[in-house]
Amino acid sequence: MAGVVFRSDMKVEMVRCAAQDADVVWSARVSTAGDRSLDDLGRDPKEATGLIRYLLLNRHGTPFEHNSFTFFVNAPIFVFREFQRHRTLSFNEWSGRYAQLDPEFYMPAPDRPLVQVGKTGHYEFVPGSDEQYETVRDATEVSCRVAYEQYERMLSAGVAREVARGVLPVATYSSMFVTMNARSIMHFLSLRTKDLDSKFPSYPQYEIELVARQIEAFFAEAMPITHAAFEEGGRVAP
Amino acid sequence: MAGVVFRSDMKVEMVRCAAQDADVVWSARVSTAGDRSLDDLGRDPKEATGLIRYLLLNRHGTPFEHNSFTFFVNAPIFVFREFQRHRTLSFNEWSGRYAQLDPEFYMPAPDRPLVQVGKTGHYEFVPGSDEQYETVRDATEVSCRVAYEQYERMLSAGVAREVARGVLPVATYSSMFVTMNARSIMHFLSLRTKDLDSKFPSYPQYEIELVARQIEAFFAEAMPITHAAFEEGGRVAP
Amino acid sequence: MAGVVFRSDMKVEMVRCAAQDADVVWSARVSTAGDRSLDDLGRDPKEATGLIRYLLLNRHGTPFEHNSFTFFVNAPIFVFREFQRHRTLSFNEWSGRYAQLDPEFYMPAPDRPLVQVGKTGHYEFVPGSDEQYETVRDATEVSCRVAYEQYERMLSAGVAREVARGVLPVATYSSMFVTMNARSIMHFLSLRTKDLDSKFPSYPQYEIELVARQIEAFFAEAMPITHAAFEEGGRVAP
Amino acid sequence: MAGVVFRSDMKVEMVRCAAQDADVVWSARVSTAGDRSLDDLGRDPKEATGLIRYLLLNRHGTPFEHNSFTFFVNAPIFVFREFQRHRTLSFNEWSGRYAQLDPEFYMPAPDRPLVQVGKTGHYEFVPGSDEQYETVRDATEVSCRVAYEQYERMLSAGVAREVARGVLPVATYSSMFVTMNARSIMHFLSLRTKDLDSKFPSYPQYEIELVARQIEAFFAEAMPITHAAFEEGGRVAP
Repeated sequence: MAGVVFRSDMKVEMVRCAAQDADVVWSARVSTAGDRSLDDLGRDPKEATGLIRYLLLNRHGTPFEHNSFTFFVNAPIFVFREFQRHRTLSFNEWSGRYAQLDPEFYMPAPDRPLVQVGKTGHYEFVPGSDEQYETVRDATEVSCRVAYEQYERMLSAGVAREVARGVLPVATYSSMFVTMNARSIMHFLSLRTKDLDSKFPSYPQYEIELVARQIEAFFAEAMPITHAAFEEGGRVAP
Repeated sequence: MAGVVFRSDMKVEMVRCAAQDADVVWSARVSTAGDRSLDDLGRDPKEATGLIRYLLLNRHGTPFEHNSFTFFVNAPIFVFREFQRHRTLSFNEWSGRYAQLDPEFYMPAPDRPLVQVGKTGHYEFVPGSDEQYETVRDATEVSCRVAYEQYERMLSAGVAREVARGVLPVATYSSMFVTMNARSIMHFLSLRTKDLDSKFPSYPQYEIELVARQIEAFFAEAMPITHAAFEEGGRVAP
Repeated sequence: MAGVVFRSDMKVEMVRCAAQDADVVWSARVSTAGDRSLDDLGRDPKEATGLIRYLLLNRHGTPFEHNSFTFFVNAPIFVFREFQRHRTLSFNEWSGRYAQLDPEFYMPAPDRPLVQVGKTGHYEFVPGSDEQYETVRDATEVSCRVAYEQYERMLSAGVAREVARGVLPVATYSSMFVTMNARSIMHFLSLRTKDLDSKFPSYPQYEIELVARQIEAFFAEAMPITHAAFEEGGRVAP
Repeated sequence: MAGVVFRSDMKVEMVRCAAQDADVVWSARVSTAGDRSLDDLGRDPKEATGLIRYLLLNRHGTPFEHNSFTFFVNAPIFVFREFQRHRTLSFNEWSGRYAQLDPEFYMPAPDRPLVQVGKTGHYEFVPGSDEQYETVRDATEVSCRVAYEQYERMLSAGVAREVARGVLPVATYSSMFVTMNARSIMHFLSLRTKDLDSKFPSYPQYEIELVARQIEAFFAEAMPITHAAFEEGGRVAP
């Protein structure tokens, strides 16, 4: 059991990016230009900033779908539970039926607010006391260690992985590939990041926001004009 | 901690059923009869058994979508993790962010096969020895009790529910409503039940099959002609 | 050819409604109440008006999906072309491959604005002159009569329906069944009705709005609290 | 009206391909290898032919979703009507509201079978007689010319494009961009190509099959191992 690892980070790697602002331009231009929109394929999207902004602010969503990002994500199961509720995305995840899961567990970092104040739907979080952090650390360690110990005990006894995994906590790290397009990314970001200046503020759990912010950085780098328009429009997906 | 409950059952209740075989008939008839298909609304579907079979066996799927079933499901998180990968369904689930989860955990029953033999993708399961059952029982009890104890310890210390829940195992029971139509039910059944006579046999986990078989019973009762055709066609969703 | 009919109306009939405001309540309550949300099944939704408004205004969409409306729609093909771009709906339509289509064509009514002013994306429509209405009437009549004549000529010569139909105009009436839930209806309404007080005004074509307004009336009758909240929130789908 | 064009061809251009057989390998490997599946990113997919075949034949669909193809398609409206019924795809099309459509119409070529024999659902098509071809040619020409003439007449009179277009036939060519992944392509091909050796033979209209066969060629070139497995498995989408 020396191998048990407690971590607080979320890993997001961009496996493939087939996306650029120019994609929005030609796919939107087809509505007015028909097959002449093919001439826009190689065009500099900067000239079309106004068009991209117009489409986003007026919620014309389909031109933001002709592109594709694939990410590798390594995060706790409770984050994946929320992520996989997004039904327009493509997922493949590590399977506790087919493989023994690693002894890696999420441990809230010292800057993770621990205490919730306010009412349902408008929670705010504030830091915990030293005692509260200590309680979380100890409770998480104790519980995850026991869980993995009992998991391994069942595996050693020849019990199937899919049965033994029942005891593993939702703090256990898993890994997945997810494929999204710019429209579904913006929808995801609108729900999974907190920004009180948004037109429709969301109150996501801290940990999925850690993932979302990394996805947002990749998205903003690949499609800077689209991302700027998304921000300007109050972070509403088109 | 006297309140900790270990259970092996899956609860499925049908909350609403707006579905009958006749729906398949009028929705399919519109393709040939146009607005005269409205005359089929009150028709006895038994006269149209041949049409329903034809549609299913030839994979005309859309006529099976104009109906709706809503189920309440109470099952462990690891079952919900698989269930919620189905992206055409509608879900609302109990939230560990908004409520304290109950101390109810899944315990494999004595007739749950424990040992896996064969290769990936074609696993078979056989019963465990008495020792193996005893190991599973003890390991699950020990681990779930510690987890809930540490969960309550964090809650008592004022730690937010969404932080504390990290230690809860995927064997914890949760509850959800799910809305499906006959087409999505058949797709779900084709993947989440095991039937070696199927055209495309699936190897679902035992516990989700316990849920799927209950859903199948409700479906078969509401749409007996459709269900019989599904069986006859080798359990392939149209 | 005496049988050629020119019409301006859109027919929408509600074939089935399995939807009420109370559905929103119990499906949302599961997030805080778990299996105790079953107690809300028979509850008076009026007591829960605040909850429904809260969900809508904060864009919690999934509780609006556990319900189902099926409509029969009879409208021109150009309306169906727009309608069928909505990808979360279920459709079955009269098929020009399997049946001879009727000689029914859409003719703009005298109160249909004919002239477009303004720029792309912000068009406004104003009435036409008497001459313009006369031109539209005559052009539509001439063209649709010739088209149906040539369609029948090909059919009489033994040419397959799917070949002959190529000459039929997009003004030809077709029929379909469509199944939607409250969430997808609100999304449809937000795009297919024009209301300058909306948070995100849309500029739909006049004819699909004729269909949308009928759907909205059925929706408002079945789910008055939800509909009122939708209006109040600026007609933004959750 | 000298400009009226009658054509029989379908244009399909691949605008972007972010897809290769290797994508199937790493996205599937994550289920057993977790984050070690990242090592498969650069791997030669030929070594993994067995895995790809296994996934396809056993209908494990999600590993075929982490890729993306964008096509430009130029085809008649009646083809787009069928194409756009596929609800997992992304579309942007030339709009008759925002632009004047070109006078280009579909004319069945001499090798397009004209006569339908057999029963609904199992139609077969045989060539037409010379007279039948002549009838189709003449009827299509007469009708489309009148339609475009009346369309232009309305436009010249200042009538809005969205009103005037009502007279245009479904044989009018339109243009669109469509984005699909390998899984949705295989589903599309299983329904829109005719192959009597398929496990579930389909009877698509000739013209959409002309489009589908071009898409299939691009797909087969980009993902030869996947395509071969699709063929071998009886052209059933996973």
